[in-house]
Amino acid sequence: MGAGSASLIELGQGLPFEERHIGPSETDRAKMLAVLGYGSLEELSEAAVPATIRLTERLNLPPARSEADVTQELRDLAGRNRVLRSMIGLGYYGTVTPAVIRRNVLESPAWYTAYTPYQPEISQGRLEALLNFQTMVADLVGLPVSGASLLDEATAAAEAMTLSLRATRSAARRFLVDADVFPQTLAVLQTRAEPLGIELVPVDLSAGSLPAGVGPYFGLLVQYPGASGVVRDLGAVVEQAHADGALVTFAADLLALTLLKAPGEFGADIAVGTTQRFGVPMGFGGPHAGYMAVREGLARSLPGRLVGVSQDAHGHRALRLALQTREQHIRREKATSNICTAQVLLAVVAGMYAVYHGPDGLSAIARRVHRHAVVLAAGLRQAGFEVADGAFFDTVAVRLPGRASELWHAARAAGVNVRLADPDTVTLSCDETTTWADLQAVWQAFGVEGAAAYALDEAAGDALPEALERESAFLTHPVFHSYRSETAMLRYLRRLSDRDVALDRSMIPLGSCTMKLNATTEMEPITWPEFANIHPFAPLEQAGGYLALIGQLERWLAEVTGYDRVSVQPNAGSQGEFAGLMAVRAYHRANGQGQRDVCLIPSSAHGTNAASAVMAGMRVIVVACRANGDVDVDDLREKIAKHRDELAVLMVTYPSTHGVFEEQITDVCASVHEAGGQVYVDGANLNALVGLAKPGRFGADVSHLNLHKTFCIPHGGGGPGVGPVAVRAHLAPYLPNHPLHPIAGPGAQRGGAVGPVSAAPWGSAGILPIPWAYIRLMGGDGLRRATQAAVLSANYVASRLGAHYPVLYTGPGNLVAHECILDLREITKQTGVTVEDVAKRLIDYGFHAPTMSFPVAGTLMVEPTESEDLVELDRFCDAMIAIRGEIEKVGAGEWDGEDNPLRNSPHTAGALVGEWTHGYDRATAVFPAGPAQAVDKYWPPVARIDGAFGDRNLVCSCPPIEELAE
Amino acid sequence: MGAGSASLIELGQGLPFEERHIGPSETDRAKMLAVLGYGSLEELSEAAVPATIRLTERLNLPPARSEADVTQELRDLAGRNRVLRSMIGLGYYGTVTPAVIRRNVLESPAWYTAYTPYQPEISQGRLEALLNFQTMVADLVGLPVSGASLLDEATAAAEAMTLSLRATRSAARRFLVDADVFPQTLAVLQTRAEPLGIELVPVDLSAGSLPAGVGPYFGLLVQYPGASGVVRDLGAVVEQAHADGALVTFAADLLALTLLKAPGEFGADIAVGTTQRFGVPMGFGGPHAGYMAVREGLARSLPGRLVGVSQDAHGHRALRLALQTREQHIRREKATSNICTAQVLLAVVAGMYAVYHGPDGLSAIARRVHRHAVVLAAGLRQAGFEVADGAFFDTVAVRLPGRASELWHAARAAGVNVRLADPDTVTLSCDETTTWADLQAVWQAFGVEGAAAYALDEAAGDALPEALERESAFLTHPVFHSYRSETAMLRYLRRLSDRDVALDRSMIPLGSCTMKLNATTEMEPITWPEFANIHPFAPLEQAGGYLALIGQLERWLAEVTGYDRVSVQPNAGSQGEFAGLMAVRAYHRANGQGQRDVCLIPSSAHGTNAASAVMAGMRVIVVACRANGDVDVDDLREKIAKHRDELAVLMVTYPSTHGVFEEQITDVCASVHEAGGQVYVDGANLNALVGLAKPGRFGADVSHLNLHKTFCIPHGGGGPGVGPVAVRAHLAPYLPNHPLHPIAGPGAQRGGAVGPVSAAPWGSAGILPIPWAYIRLMGGDGLRRATQAAVLSANYVASRLGAHYPVLYTGPGNLVAHECILDLREITKQTGVTVEDVAKRLIDYGFHAPTMSFPVAGTLMVEPTESEDLVELDRFCDAMIAIRGEIEKVGAGEWDGEDNPLRNSPHTAGALVGEWTHGYDRATAVFPAGPAQAVDKYWPPVARIDGAFGDRNLVCSCPPIEELAE
Repeated sequence: MGAGSASLIELGQGLPFEERHIGPSETDRAKMLAVLGYGSLEELSEAAVPATIRLTERLNLPPARSEADVTQELRDLAGRNRVLRSMIGLGYYGTVTPAVIRRNVLESPAWYTAYTPYQPEISQGRLEALLNFQTMVADLVGLPVSGASLLDEATAAAEAMTLSLRATRSAARRFLVDADVFPQTLAVLQTRAEPLGIELVPVDLSAGSLPAGVGPYFGLLVQYPGASGVVRDLGAVVEQAHADGALVTFAADLLALTLLKAPGEFGADIAVGTTQRFGVPMGFGGPHAGYMAVREGLARSLPGRLVGVSQDAHGHRALRLALQTREQHIRREKATSNICTAQVLLAVVAGMYAVYHGPDGLSAIARRVHRHAVVLAAGLRQAGFEVADGAFFDTVAVRLPGRASELWHAARAAGVNVRLADPDTVTLSCDETTTWADLQAVWQAFGVEGAAAYALDEAAGDALPEALERESAFLTHPVFHSYRSETAMLRYLRRLSDRDVALDRSMIPLGSCTMKLNATTEMEPITWPEFANIHPFAPLEQAGGYLALIGQLERWLAEVTGYDRVSVQPNAGSQGEFAGLMAVRAYHRANGQGQRDVCLIPSSAHGTNAASAVMAGMRVIVVACRANGDVDVDDLREKIAKHRDELAVLMVTYPSTHGVFEEQITDVCASVHEAGGQVYVDGANLNALVGLAKPGRFGADVSHLNLHKTFCIPHGGGGPGVGPVAVRAHLAPYLPNHPLHPIAGPGAQRGGAVGPVSAAPWGSAGILPIPWAYIRLMGGDGLRRATQAAVLSANYVASRLGAHYPVLYTGPGNLVAHECILDLREITKQTGVTVEDVAKRLIDYGFHAPTMSFPVAGTLMVEPTESEDLVELDRFCDAMIAIRGEIEKVGAGEWDGEDNPLRNSPHTAGALVGEWTHGYDRATAVFPAGPAQAVDKYWPPVARIDGAFGDRNLVCSCPPIEELAE
Repeated sequence: MGAGSASLIELGQGLPFEERHIGPSETDRAKMLAVLGYGSLEELSEAAVPATIRLTERLNLPPARSEADVTQELRDLAGRNRVLRSMIGLGYYGTVTPAVIRRNVLESPAWYTAYTPYQPEISQGRLEALLNFQTMVADLVGLPVSGASLLDEATAAAEAMTLSLRATRSAARRFLVDADVFPQTLAVLQTRAEPLGIELVPVDLSAGSLPAGVGPYFGLLVQYPGASGVVRDLGAVVEQAHADGALVTFAADLLALTLLKAPGEFGADIAVGTTQRFGVPMGFGGPHAGYMAVREGLARSLPGRLVGVSQDAHGHRALRLALQTREQHIRREKATSNICTAQVLLAVVAGMYAVYHGPDGLSAIARRVHRHAVVLAAGLRQAGFEVADGAFFDTVAVRLPGRASELWHAARAAGVNVRLADPDTVTLSCDETTTWADLQAVWQAFGVEGAAAYALDEAAGDALPEALERESAFLTHPVFHSYRSETAMLRYLRRLSDRDVALDRSMIPLGSCTMKLNATTEMEPITWPEFANIHPFAPLEQAGGYLALIGQLERWLAEVTGYDRVSVQPNAGSQGEFAGLMAVRAYHRANGQGQRDVCLIPSSAHGTNAASAVMAGMRVIVVACRANGDVDVDDLREKIAKHRDELAVLMVTYPSTHGVFEEQITDVCASVHEAGGQVYVDGANLNALVGLAKPGRFGADVSHLNLHKTFCIPHGGGGPGVGPVAVRAHLAPYLPNHPLHPIAGPGAQRGGAVGPVSAAPWGSAGILPIPWAYIRLMGGDGLRRATQAAVLSANYVASRLGAHYPVLYTGPGNLVAHECILDLREITKQTGVTVEDVAKRLIDYGFHAPTMSFPVAGTLMVEPTESEDLVELDRFCDAMIAIRGEIEKVGAGEWDGEDNPLRNSPHTAGALVGEWTHGYDRATAVFPAGPAQAVDKYWPPVARIDGAFGDRNLVCSCPPIEELAE
């Protein structure tokens, strides 16, 4: 009998999760360190990270736990949420996610680990899914062009407001808002209007016209149907507004539009809203896809992304993001919006919901929803309740003078959340999940006796206005008629995802995007019903699990970043930036320094920074960078001196967008503070800092984080993102708050606080279990090791590739941070081979391209992250080195400058079978990594795409059938 | 305001699930009916199904419900199960399924909808996964050849017993069984031994040797470690048995073998067991993969499937099922086993668990399990409990004279299920999920005070015998060392599944296999913890949800088939057959008709029928078939007359294996009954009957069903199957029962009952939510419509293809049932193109082949099922017609007889890039369906595989590294 073997303590808990998350094993890490000449990760960190900012203590986080334990903790948290039937409405509804879509989109790594489709050749699947979404929205709202999704209805409304202002070039900065608008939409509009000096004017449209004497205005927002449920004929209102030179935006319910006249048919210029009820769970507020569609003439002003049809090098139809020159990184302070995330994954779900149901299925759902509301109202009326007159779709308003609160409680006790609209009114919204049992529960709670649902159903007429009945067809494209069986749908989803490269196939070495592991244990909870099916405005005692999870997450994020308070409300990095700048603005104003409106931004910054600053009412002053990529401290000091009294804030990214730990960061912060300004550190590159340094400690006052980068929320093919804002204590009173759940923010009073930046109190709460689980699984030491491994991998790649492509910027010890920039400008000059050629040629090797020409034109930025193992890192480096050899052949004239594998890349399977006229052979074209590539080869579905062609001939919905027949 | 619109009643519940399940829409069904000249599905059914058997009443099943409602019902059922910590052991253990494997194998349609890898060119992914499994088993047990999985440990032990008998050709039909064997294994051995006249002799091996005077025997089974937990040195026992000319089988725990000397190192001839604890949830008994491995010389006698290495037409390594001539359909009554299902999906999970953990990870898990047991024992000993002496791995036996039941209850009250081994003993098994809190809970329940786990852990030595410590290496192949990070594992799983064609890519038109939709709503519940984590021998009040679900399912299946009682215990069709025949045997014996041992089987029957009959102690007499495929009734009557007094049973498949509704079935049944025999209807083709006819009503006494065909359990790449047995009332007393949960069968007494046929009381209970959900979603009318649609589609295909390939057999109205046989024999004779050529050429078109040469050599059998929509049916027919045109070109000499696209198929991408020497062009080779095929093309990873090469050079584990380097 063996004695004294290893004890349980010595054996430990098994392979810790960090060894699953971090790609290179300890052995491989040692090999990589040896290549770089360092003895340990600690040694490397010490060399790479400036001593002035380097953390000396460990992160104060709970110790790492196993995946099974964390799953159990999450199940316990989920058990503290209580799912009641929601009749709250206000843009959030129960919906049935078709199981085939849940499993094969929401729960499929092929969809959720994909990146934004900037490389369209490897993104045709999700681009088609987004084109379906755009077609669905455009058809339903009756407007020709829809974008590929926005963040939520409230921010979409705010974007419509600013679009209206730009389009009308109005001198009057007044925007009319329907008094029957959703309260959260109004609140977000207020937040966004204030810094731009826009006055919001509430208007009562119940008479079917604008009140007299409303004065000059540039736009009008109507809610259709209204928050109270009423469906109004708004034709006269639209006419009047157009006569007044204003643009009209409809915030419209897409499900209602299957039965009701479309906004476009009223003459609306813009339509916005949410697609949540198209199969996307409520998730305590998000994520889901907001939408915006516009009339002819406004397409080029659309915020966010737009998918369009173009063609590839062989003349075949191919999709890509259209009108990319509108992007923030190009237009900076001239950008029309700071939006750069869409809600792609959720837009795909909503679009597929429409594909699966088709127009008839959607109309049938809408009819059932309506009939439930009709029968509910009839039962209440019969019992003598005062139900609001007039037409409605899904929401019934009941006047209960003095009793509304009592009956709100009674309904809740019966398992139904209704909405307390005011002290004398409750509203009841029906949705796809409403059952007769729910109606009975409400009636019983309201003391209605003897309501016979069947008889009421027989007797009651519809409550839709005949004059507004929809007559126009929608979703006539075959895609909405071809996938009715689950088998057909399953194959369609697989086919589309197979066209794309996501993290489940290969490394995605995108600089600044941190495409790391989205672990299954992190992902699983988000589709559990207890997290998925909570309304954002549900009574908080039903969201105990969420509140506990969010509270812990906010504290953990504060610990990681060194700040004092965090708000998870911003549902994208752009919104986090805006919220952070608004906090700075409010802080200065509270201190009587309202004149401080200058925002200093280095020329290397991401364009969104400038766009956000403009939205927050600031003036952008650009600070120069030095040849080595660092901020030019002399220029900075000069600009500070020049704008000393107006200086609001300096925005810097750290490590810089050049992937470098700049040494002078603490000095820079000090100079700004000395001048009375605040320091904003963009958290985009936080993956290089966690556990090694804390922005909140080295001088910054505020940051936003990208939970979809550093904290493992997957990119979802281009969204959802989550962008919490983190601040030091003096800015905490100015974090976002929310009128419907004041505890989501620092205070209910609008006085000092800035109001909400997102529609939901905790933003995209539904996916916060992901970063929560990541931190819980890694613990403080694991997080630190992940950062060190990310820095190690970036330096390993830089070291292996440096001999072949110059590495543009480096910091202390000639090291990079978590990413490196490969400079191809000289190579291009000498050989004609461009970064685009290299990016597309990588597809032939089976890789997604690095970031192209950002932050420096003519370069490629590579961020390997900690999750790629040594085999994959080497496979990538080998491909890049082989490509360098190919470039040489072009340079040496061995291959023709126009006919070579780089310029012709990516090569499709279709191109292989015809006559072969190239000056290189087929094997070189498609199996450049060697013949073994043939077995598991990724084949791009299209050749290189001509983006300009599509921009000249803008088509942004599914092409007509005739064209399909080609 | 519109009045009097459609009421909720009129609107209905939305698109019923059957419209998602059935591929062709109502419009398309009308088109297809028109092609066939029928006005409605009813008309077609009336023409196709003989009036004598046609049902006139509707199925008495609950009405169909929506997917959301059924999911809620399942959640409610799940809520009635209570998951306690299990320490019951006996081959079922808590285990942590790595989330990446759960999501990307168990929950991935690419894996679970795949078919058995009979077409190896489109199955390389799962074949590699199975080769990993075989390597894992072979390495751990120390024997050279492992099969690709068996059904469970108990049936594997039974297979080892019969293998031993065959291999030794012993005259003595005595088999020794370790007294410390698992009780369910002993019970299954008894069931299987009895009809074969094998005597089981229990032997006490605790002294390390066989008892003296045990007499002659052909084999010995030892449990290692024993059910009591003890680890014995069995070297002397093995030597003695070998000296006695017997074969020795080890039933061995794979996790223990990471620390203990391997069976092969003791000289074992055979090893069997379960791989459940390698990541496969307990699922109230199954499914999970049993295993069997053998020494040199026994490989060709292995039951079940065996994956081996071979090469393709280009000489590249390729995998395929080896030694296929052992299959039942070839050897019939000479078959060595009736096993034809494996547990592929679960074997893949277990193999991937080993790939993910590697040898070090597995050993570490084993060490932690062991240490928990050591500390648990130490705490009990310290408190004065009598813990069994001797070495143990994970199970501790505690003697509690007179108190065992009391403490069993106390533990249960503390949330722990322990095993009541006998009135004076409990055993406690630790596993991967055991925590210190569990030890504390046990101690507390046992009244142990002051046990300090940390101190005990420090003090206690291991309880593994030094002499038996494992010294040999295992899992040295790189595959067990390359996928440690989740990212790497995710990509490996994706890469393998991408090599295969499953239902998520295309139709799988396999005759007799019913590859229909496995709906997500049906699949989701099986991975919910409340269904996944229940031990099969847990107290039944913890399995209330399971018992309710199983009870309903058994009643529903009885209603559907017209029988009186159903048992879901058989965990494969083969076991259902065996159970059915055993019921017939027991019935005759109970009636004093023990001499009835003749089983009549038509020559067209599936080979398994005959194999099962032999296992049930019967003699097989073959009945001839007529030219039209029907049973030759004259020959049948003759055989009945000849064997009148010995006639036990007639086994027929209905509709026949020729896919035809034979008209004389009722007469046939009557003749058999008149002679005193029973009628067994093989339920393989039940998908043609449900709702249209009931075997239990048209004269049959017993059937088995294939839930993995008709009732939507997915094929999982070749298992799990589930094969309930259904009987009329007079056979009900002879259904399987189970010693550990008597209520699973008709009676606890062994007297009349036949004993268990599977290790678990309700077989593969864990996947029974699938057929339950299917029936619940469809309702009786939906099931009937599905059958009608399946018959419609088969006839539509027969009609479209009949002009190009003769349809071999038809029934009334010149109609087929649910499948059709295309006769290529004449075509082959004239052109040299074989069914294999057509099958492989279909891969180039993007299809899985139909069934090849079964039931008639030289033919293809096509079963489209109801789930394929008209677009896919037409795409398949178009491909088959195009292939017919290609055959013509060969026949006409336009293409060379040896060098043509048919003979060279399937064409790989790799073959495209070299010099092209064929008499047809590349496009014809790889895009035969047209250039549009290029976009979503499925590329086979290998060319046509030479199976014989591999059989001559048998390699059944991962090839050595040197070969990989080639």
